[in-house]
Amino acid sequence: MTMTFQTLAELRALLSDLPMPDPAAIAAAEARNGQLTKPPGALGRLEKLAVWMAGWQGTEKPRADRPQIAIFAGNHGVAAKGVSAFPAEVTVQMVANFTHGGAAINQLAKAFGARLDVHALDLDHPTGDFTEGPAMTEAEVVAALRKGFEAVDPQADLFVAGEMGIGNTTSAAAIATALYGGTGWAGRGTGVDDAGLRRKEAAIAAGVERNRALLGDPLQVLRALGGREIAAMAGAILGARMARVPVILDGFIACAAAAVLDRAAPGALDHCIAGHQSAEGAHARLLEKLGKEPLLALGLRLGEGSGAALAIGVVKGAVACHSGMATFAEAGVAGGG
Amino acid sequence: MTMTFQTLAELRALLSDLPMPDPAAIAAAEARNGQLTKPPGALGRLEKLAVWMAGWQGTEKPRADRPQIAIFAGNHGVAAKGVSAFPAEVTVQMVANFTHGGAAINQLAKAFGARLDVHALDLDHPTGDFTEGPAMTEAEVVAALRKGFEAVDPQADLFVAGEMGIGNTTSAAAIATALYGGTGWAGRGTGVDDAGLRRKEAAIAAGVERNRALLGDPLQVLRALGGREIAAMAGAILGARMARVPVILDGFIACAAAAVLDRAAPGALDHCIAGHQSAEGAHARLLEKLGKEPLLALGLRLGEGSGAALAIGVVKGAVACHSGMATFAEAGVAGGG
Repeated sequence: MTMTFQTLAELRALLSDLPMPDPAAIAAAEARNGQLTKPPGALGRLEKLAVWMAGWQGTEKPRADRPQIAIFAGNHGVAAKGVSAFPAEVTVQMVANFTHGGAAINQLAKAFGARLDVHALDLDHPTGDFTEGPAMTEAEVVAALRKGFEAVDPQADLFVAGEMGIGNTTSAAAIATALYGGTGWAGRGTGVDDAGLRRKEAAIAAGVERNRALLGDPLQVLRALGGREIAAMAGAILGARMARVPVILDGFIACAAAAVLDRAAPGALDHCIAGHQSAEGAHARLLEKLGKEPLLALGLRLGEGSGAALAIGVVKGAVACHSGMATFAEAGVAGGG
Repeated sequence: MTMTFQTLAELRALLSDLPMPDPAAIAAAEARNGQLTKPPGALGRLEKLAVWMAGWQGTEKPRADRPQIAIFAGNHGVAAKGVSAFPAEVTVQMVANFTHGGAAINQLAKAFGARLDVHALDLDHPTGDFTEGPAMTEAEVVAALRKGFEAVDPQADLFVAGEMGIGNTTSAAAIATALYGGTGWAGRGTGVDDAGLRRKEAAIAAGVERNRALLGDPLQVLRALGGREIAAMAGAILGARMARVPVILDGFIACAAAAVLDRAAPGALDHCIAGHQSAEGAHARLLEKLGKEPLLALGLRLGEGSGAALAIGVVKGAVACHSGMATFAEAGVAGGG
């Protein structure tokens, strides 16, 4: 199995032959779960989570001791259309904030013992304005996908992809519109006003119209309407799959990146769970399209991987219980009857 | 302000003069929240959580570095009525499991860096069967309340009360029935079958009928229908309030204990949040009565404080962001416009 790609065609080859979870580990974990000192099913979703982790990690007793968070930042040509509440220079300022440890994701990474990597993707060269043509060339989208693909530490036992990019909820909504059709995929992002929301909707409609010839292919949707950080997140989710590292999906933008893979290869997100349902309007709808039920719903709408990072705590709890609890036999506790 | 009690009358005196959060700390935390490097409101419920923690801890930058979990175990006379899927001896067996580190709560405590204390309350002497009269004498209920009250470490920065006690969902449902009226408070507990559920409902109806003369007073409801671990949890929640330690409420049984305080003194649970909505049928209804929206809803129904312990991770994330993030000025990031 080749572990990288130089072209979209080579990427498609990877997508057509994805690694699967280990059925023996799943069976062993399920058996173990039935012997732990608790009534059957009493740990609710934690039980399913632990068995899912076991399958991808290929072990009866999964771990979440080495979570990795990778943040990708990109700049968007469409930001010039006034689609955000913040100016485009905030992308590079926030990258500095990540690097200096001042952002929300830095605190969450520390709180949950996660490694945090920051990848600034060619911030001086925004993608093309997709209302005027494809946002990226094929070489550009492949480079961004590879950046993400190669960012995954194969030794990580859990992976989160996060993003920063002024204008990127517009790009994500355009991707969702192209993949699923319908309207209403645009939301308030970082807090755009009514006029800004109308500009966002207009930009999305124009982008879909202008790039229509490309939109039959999910990877071309990514090239035409995405951004470098969105492509990198898609690449990272695929990279994690190749290494059988389980992934927690973040909010609307991360899920738009994931949706590209899901549409390109059904089942491509089987190694992913949804961490948090964002307050960004259409995220719940996008999660439904992906068939993912979020672990948390706490009204975050920040990006940076923050919602998924918060869910690392839940996964840690799930595997801690599964892998650390005594069995009825070990503890000398009478089973239920 | 006296910091203990010998009688229910002295307990009532404490309840009539409860400590309140620090308004200056709340104002300072709100001001800080507005300056952090994120769009306004983008951390959703995490922001409210951090400000609430600030108020109770009396500081602009709250912490969750020293969480304490206290588990209380008790045996119930009503267990003889066949209301549980497990035999009564499981209570003492599970206490041994807690002590040896084999239960779910041990793993969650370790995962979130919490101190875990286990208090076995007179397990050789079950409470009276409440279908035949009050479960406890006044001396017994006061002793259990004090045990909980004194279990709280005033240096803790977050507190969770958990429980173990075969038969205690029956006791909790009887308390809820007495406090709020109506029917349908009984659920499946650890997994009782249909016949067991009918025995449970019958026991609750009989207990309420037999003790009706006492049920006008919430503290007498606790004495008549509660158990030692439920009284101890109520005492611990009050003890945390006296020390201004914020509390995460666990499931149905912990919330029944909390409800006694809430009915005895409205506002007595202002220092409490709901950690997790249990799969136990009537927990959602009980949370509504308490006016608490749970942080998590992951289908747990284990007790032991497990749902609340899982929510420690969310609170840790909230205070980590609030207390650790850079402000716009510190980070040199342009604010939203």
